[in-house]
Amino acid sequence: MVLYAYSLAFGIIALLFSIFAAWITLKKDKGNTKMQEISDAIRSGASAYLNRQAMTIGIFVVILSILFSFLANGMQIVIAFVTGAVTAYLTAYLGMNVAVRANVRTTKAAESGVSEAFYTAILGGAVTGFAAIGFGLVGISLLLSYLTVSNIAILIGFGFGASLVSLFARVGGGIYTKSADVGADLVGKTELNMPEDDPRNPAVIADNVGDNVGDCAGMAADVYESYVVTIVAALLIAASISITSPLGAPVNRAPFFNYPLYIASAGVIGSLASMLFLKSKGRNATPALYKGIGSAIIVSAFLDLAITYAMGFSLSYFTAVLSGLVLAILLFAITDYYTGSGSKPVIKIAEAARGGAGTGVIMGLSVGLRTTFLPVIFVVIAILVSYYSVGVYGIGIAAVGMLSLTATILTIDSFGPITDNAGGIAEMANLPEKVRKVTDSLDALGNTTKATTKGFAIGGAALSATALFVAFAAAVGLKAIDALNPIVAAGIFLGALLPFIFSSFLMEAVGNTAKLMVDEVRRQVRTMKGIMTGKTKPDYAKAVDIVTVNSLKALVVPELLAIGAPIVVGLVLGRAALGGLLVGMIPTSFVMALFMANGGAAMDNAKKYIETGKFGGKGSDAHKAAVVGDTVGDPLKDTAGPALNSMIKVVSTVSILLAPVFLMYAAM
Amino acid sequence: MVLYAYSLAFGIIALLFSIFAAWITLKKDKGNTKMQEISDAIRSGASAYLNRQAMTIGIFVVILSILFSFLANGMQIVIAFVTGAVTAYLTAYLGMNVAVRANVRTTKAAESGVSEAFYTAILGGAVTGFAAIGFGLVGISLLLSYLTVSNIAILIGFGFGASLVSLFARVGGGIYTKSADVGADLVGKTELNMPEDDPRNPAVIADNVGDNVGDCAGMAADVYESYVVTIVAALLIAASISITSPLGAPVNRAPFFNYPLYIASAGVIGSLASMLFLKSKGRNATPALYKGIGSAIIVSAFLDLAITYAMGFSLSYFTAVLSGLVLAILLFAITDYYTGSGSKPVIKIAEAARGGAGTGVIMGLSVGLRTTFLPVIFVVIAILVSYYSVGVYGIGIAAVGMLSLTATILTIDSFGPITDNAGGIAEMANLPEKVRKVTDSLDALGNTTKATTKGFAIGGAALSATALFVAFAAAVGLKAIDALNPIVAAGIFLGALLPFIFSSFLMEAVGNTAKLMVDEVRRQVRTMKGIMTGKTKPDYAKAVDIVTVNSLKALVVPELLAIGAPIVVGLVLGRAALGGLLVGMIPTSFVMALFMANGGAAMDNAKKYIETGKFGGKGSDAHKAAVVGDTVGDPLKDTAGPALNSMIKVVSTVSILLAPVFLMYAAM
Repeated sequence: MVLYAYSLAFGIIALLFSIFAAWITLKKDKGNTKMQEISDAIRSGASAYLNRQAMTIGIFVVILSILFSFLANGMQIVIAFVTGAVTAYLTAYLGMNVAVRANVRTTKAAESGVSEAFYTAILGGAVTGFAAIGFGLVGISLLLSYLTVSNIAILIGFGFGASLVSLFARVGGGIYTKSADVGADLVGKTELNMPEDDPRNPAVIADNVGDNVGDCAGMAADVYESYVVTIVAALLIAASISITSPLGAPVNRAPFFNYPLYIASAGVIGSLASMLFLKSKGRNATPALYKGIGSAIIVSAFLDLAITYAMGFSLSYFTAVLSGLVLAILLFAITDYYTGSGSKPVIKIAEAARGGAGTGVIMGLSVGLRTTFLPVIFVVIAILVSYYSVGVYGIGIAAVGMLSLTATILTIDSFGPITDNAGGIAEMANLPEKVRKVTDSLDALGNTTKATTKGFAIGGAALSATALFVAFAAAVGLKAIDALNPIVAAGIFLGALLPFIFSSFLMEAVGNTAKLMVDEVRRQVRTMKGIMTGKTKPDYAKAVDIVTVNSLKALVVPELLAIGAPIVVGLVLGRAALGGLLVGMIPTSFVMALFMANGGAAMDNAKKYIETGKFGGKGSDAHKAAVVGDTVGDPLKDTAGPALNSMIKVVSTVSILLAPVFLMYAAM
Repeated sequence: MVLYAYSLAFGIIALLFSIFAAWITLKKDKGNTKMQEISDAIRSGASAYLNRQAMTIGIFVVILSILFSFLANGMQIVIAFVTGAVTAYLTAYLGMNVAVRANVRTTKAAESGVSEAFYTAILGGAVTGFAAIGFGLVGISLLLSYLTVSNIAILIGFGFGASLVSLFARVGGGIYTKSADVGADLVGKTELNMPEDDPRNPAVIADNVGDNVGDCAGMAADVYESYVVTIVAALLIAASISITSPLGAPVNRAPFFNYPLYIASAGVIGSLASMLFLKSKGRNATPALYKGIGSAIIVSAFLDLAITYAMGFSLSYFTAVLSGLVLAILLFAITDYYTGSGSKPVIKIAEAARGGAGTGVIMGLSVGLRTTFLPVIFVVIAILVSYYSVGVYGIGIAAVGMLSLTATILTIDSFGPITDNAGGIAEMANLPEKVRKVTDSLDALGNTTKATTKGFAIGGAALSATALFVAFAAAVGLKAIDALNPIVAAGIFLGALLPFIFSSFLMEAVGNTAKLMVDEVRRQVRTMKGIMTGKTKPDYAKAVDIVTVNSLKALVVPELLAIGAPIVVGLVLGRAALGGLLVGMIPTSFVMALFMANGGAAMDNAKKYIETGKFGGKGSDAHKAAVVGDTVGDPLKDTAGPALNSMIKVVSTVSILLAPVFLMYAAM
C-alpha cells in the first residue's frame, strides 16, 4: 500500500477551507424576519427536493451495487462506486445548503454596498468549490492507496458513482429549475404583468428553489464528476501506456500516477490564491472574475512547471498541462463574448426580436449554432498539442490541468444562484431601492458567470470524455476503432443519435411540467381572490410540490437511456460498436451542448438587453418577443445542454466499468 | 469503349416520359385571365431568380473548372464536372418551369374536382421526377462508356458537378422560400390579420415564387444529386473491391458495374408503374401516395430479383438492394407518423401551444429531436444488413436500390409546391368556395408529401454519403480510419461541428432577409394607402427583388464553407483527418437534418391542426403561439435541414475528387 500523502493532504486542506468558508458565511448577519422567512421557504423547498432525489438515486445505487457485486473484484467496485456516489451527493448537498443560507446574507450585505455583497456570495460559492476538489482528492488518494496497477480499473467505479449522481442532479435539477422558471414567467410576467420575483406569484418560491437545485447542486455534481473522472482517466491511461525502462530494470509507473495528482494538488493552491483576487470594488465586477481565474491559472502553471522540473519530466509534459489550463480561460472568454450582456451577437438577437418572436428565436438559434465554432477549434488544438507533446497520456494530463481549476470555477459559478436568490429575496422582502440596485447588478453578473462557467464545464466534459475514450479502448483491448468497419460505423450513427434523443426527453419534461405549473398558477390566481391584491399569501408549497414530483418522475427514462445505451450496444453489437458509440457521441454531444447552453444564454441576455431600455424597453413588442426567446432558451441552456455533460460521462464510465464483461463476450 | 446501352436506353425512356408528361400538362386549360396573370407573375419571379442563380453558379463552375484542369485527367474531369452541373441545373430548371405552369392548370382542374386536380399536379411533378433519373442515367451511361477501371474516378467529377448545383439550389432556394414566407406571414397574417395568399400582401408573389425555387427546384437538384452520386459511389466501390477469379482468368468487374445500372433501370420501370397508382378519387388522397410508392417498390423489387437471378448473383445481393427499397417506405411512413396532420406528436405540440409560444416551441423542438430515433435505427439496420450480405459493395447497391425510387418520390414531392401554388392562385383570383375547398385539401396533402419525401431525401443522402465514405477511403488509400488516432479524432470533432456552423449561416440569412421583407411589407402598407382596401396593387416586384438579391448574397459563405472545409482539413491535417471529418460529419448532419426537417414540419402541422378549430381555432391565443412555432420551424425544415443533405455530399465528393492531391501530399 502506497499512501498518496501529498494529494490526500491537499484534499484535506481544500475541505478545511470549505468548512472555514462555510463558517465565515454562516456567521454573517441574516437580515430581518421577513427576509429570513423567505430564505427559509427556499431552503426547505430545496432540501425537500434533494432529500426525495436522494431516495430515487438510492434505489439506483442499490440495484447497480447488487449487479456490480457479480463482477470480478465486485466488492471493491461496489465500495468505490458507493463512495463516488456519496461524495458527489455530499458536494451537491453541502454546497447547496450553504448557498441557500448565503443568499439572504448576501441580500443583507448589499445594504453595505457591492463589494461586501460580492464577497459574501463568492465565499458562499467557495464552500461548494473547495468541497468538490477536497472530496475528489481525498477519495481518489485513499482508494488509490489500496490498489495496484493490476486492479486500478476499480477506480472507474468511483468515477461512475460520481457520474450517476451528476446525471441525476443535472437532469432532475435542470427539469426542476426550468419548469419552475418557465411556469412562473409565463403566467406571472406575461399574463399578469408581475415583475420578476413578485411575492404574489405562486411559483416564485419554486423558481428560487430551482436556481439552487439546478444551477447550484446540479452544476456542483457535474463539475465534481468531471474533476473525478478526469483524474481517474489520467490514472487509467498511466496504467496502460507502454513505458520504456532501462534493460532489466522494473517498469516504474509511480511517477505517472503521481503526476496528475500533483497537478491537481497544485490546483488547490492556485484556487486558494484566486480567492484573494475575487473581490470587487465597483459596480462592474467582471474584471474581478477574470482576475480570479487568471490568478488561479498563473499560480497553477507556475507550480506545474516546478513539479514537472522536480520530477525530472521533460517540458513537453508541462506543455500538455498548460494547454488544458489555457483552454479553460479561452472557453470562459469565448462564452463571455457570445453571451455577455451587450455583446454583438446578443444585440443581434434583440434586434431580430423587433420582427417578432419568430425571427428572434431564429436569430437566437443561429447565434447558438455559431458559438460552437471557436470552442471546438480550441478543444481540437488542445487535444493535438497535448497528444503530440507526450502521446495519449498528454490528453489525460491536459484534461487534469484544465480541471485543476475546478474550485475557482465552481466558486464563481455558485455565485450565480446565490446572487439570483439574493435579488429575489430583496424583491420579495420589499427592501429599499438602493439595496435592490446592488443585488440587481450582482444578479446580472451572476447570469454571466453561470453562462461562462458552463463553457468550462462543457469543454471540461469533452476533454475528460476524450481521455475516458482512450482509457476505454485500453480497457476493452481495442488497438483501433476503425470507422470503415461497418459495426463501428453503426455505433457511430447511434452515438450521434444519443444526444438528440436524450435532449428530447428533457425538453419534453420541461414542457410538460411547465404546463402543469402554468395551470396551477392560473388556478391559484383565479380561485384565491386576495393574491393579486397582495392580501392572501399564495400556496407556494403546492407549486413546489408539483415541480418536485414531476421532475423526479421525468428523471427515470433519460437515466435509463444513458446507462442502458452502452450496455445494449456493447452486448448486442459488441465492443467495437460500443467504441463507435463513444466516437459518435462525444463530439456530437459536445457541439450540441455548446449550441444549447450558449444559444439559451444569448437569448436570455437579449431579453435583459431590451429591458435596459433598448428597442423599446420593457413591455414593448420587441420585449414580449424576446421573452418568448428566453423561454425557449431556458430548457436549452439549463436543462438539456448541461445534462449532456453528465450523459457523456455516464456512458463513458459505464463502458469502461463493464469492459471485462464486453471482453468476455467478445471472446465467446 | 463499352456502351452501357441498357441504362442509356432506360435513361432515354425516362426523358421521353418526362417530355410526354410536360406535353400533357401544358395542353391543359390554364384558366381565366386573372389566374394567368397571377401565374405569370410567379413564373417570371421564379425564372428571374433561377437565371440570376445560374450566373452565380456559373462563376463557381468556371473557377473550379480552371482549378480542376490542373489535376491528372484534368480535361476529362472538367467535362464530367460541367456535365454534372449542367444536367443538375437543367433538372431543376425544367422541373420548376413546368411546375409554375402546372400550378394554374391544377387550379383550373380543381373546378372539375379532386381527382382531376390531383392528377394534373402529379403529372406536373412527374416532369421533374423523370427528368432527374433520365439525365442521371444518360449522363452516367455515356461517361462510363468512355472510361476504364483505371480512370473511373473521373465519374466523381460528374457527381461533384451535381452536388455543387444542388448545394446552391438548396441553400439559395431555401433562404429564398423561407425569407419570403416568414416575411409574408409576420406582417400579413400576424399584424394585419390577412389570410394566407391574400393579394393585398406585398410579399405574396415572392412567397409563391419561393415555393417553386425552394421546394421544387431545390428538392429536384438535391434528389437528382443523391441519385447521381449514389450510382457513382456504387461504381467506384465496384472498381475498388477485391474480386476473386479462377486462377489465371482475368478479373471481370463488368457485372459489378452493370448491376447498379440495371437496378437503376429497373427503377425506371417501377416508377412508370407507380404513375398508374398515383390517382385519387376521394378527398383523402394519402392512400394514393402509399399505393404509388408501394407499387414502385414492388415492381422494382420483382425486377431486381430477376436481374440478380439472370446475372447469376447470389440472393444476398438482392437482400442488400431490398434493404434499400424497404428503407425508403419506412422513412416515408415514419415521417408521416411524426409530422402528419392530426398525428399524436403534432397534437402534443398544439396542446403545448396553449401555454404560450414558448412552451409550444419547446415541445416542437422536443418532438423534432425525438423523430430522429427510428430513421437512424433503420438506416443503421440497412447498412448492417447490406454489408453483411455482400460487404462494402452491398452498402453501395442498397443505396442505389433506395434511390432507384427517385422518380416516384420526386413526382410526389413536386406535387407539394404545385398544389401550394394552386391554392394561392385560387385565393388570389377569388375563385368560388367550392374550388378553394379542393385546392385547400390538396394543399394540405402537399404539405405532408413535402415533409415525407424530405425523410427519403435525408435518408438517401445518409446512405449515399456512407457509400461515398467507403469510396473515399479507397481513393485516398486508407485501409482504416482509426478514431484512436488523435489526428482522426480532431477530424471527427471538426466534422461534427460542420453542420452546426453551416446551419448557423442559413438560419441567420433567413432571419436577416425575412427582417428586410418585414420592413418592406410594412413600408408598402404604410405608404401606399390603397393596399389595405384592395384598390392599389402592391409592388410585388420590389419584394421579389429583395429576396432574390439577398438570397444570392447569403449563398457564398455556406458554399465556400462546404467546399473549403474538406480542402483545408485535407491539406493542413492530412487525409486521415479528412476521413475523420467525414466520420464526424455524416452521422451528425444526418441526425441534425432529421431533427430540423421533422421538427419544423410538426410545428407547421400543429398550427394547421389548431386552424381546423381545435384548442380555440384560428385567432385564439394557442393559434398565435403556434404561428410563432411555425415561423421558427420554417427555416429549420425548408432551409437548414434540407441544405445539410447537399452539404454532406459536396464535402464527400470534393474529398474524393481531390483524393490524388491528398495522396500526393501524404507522400511528401
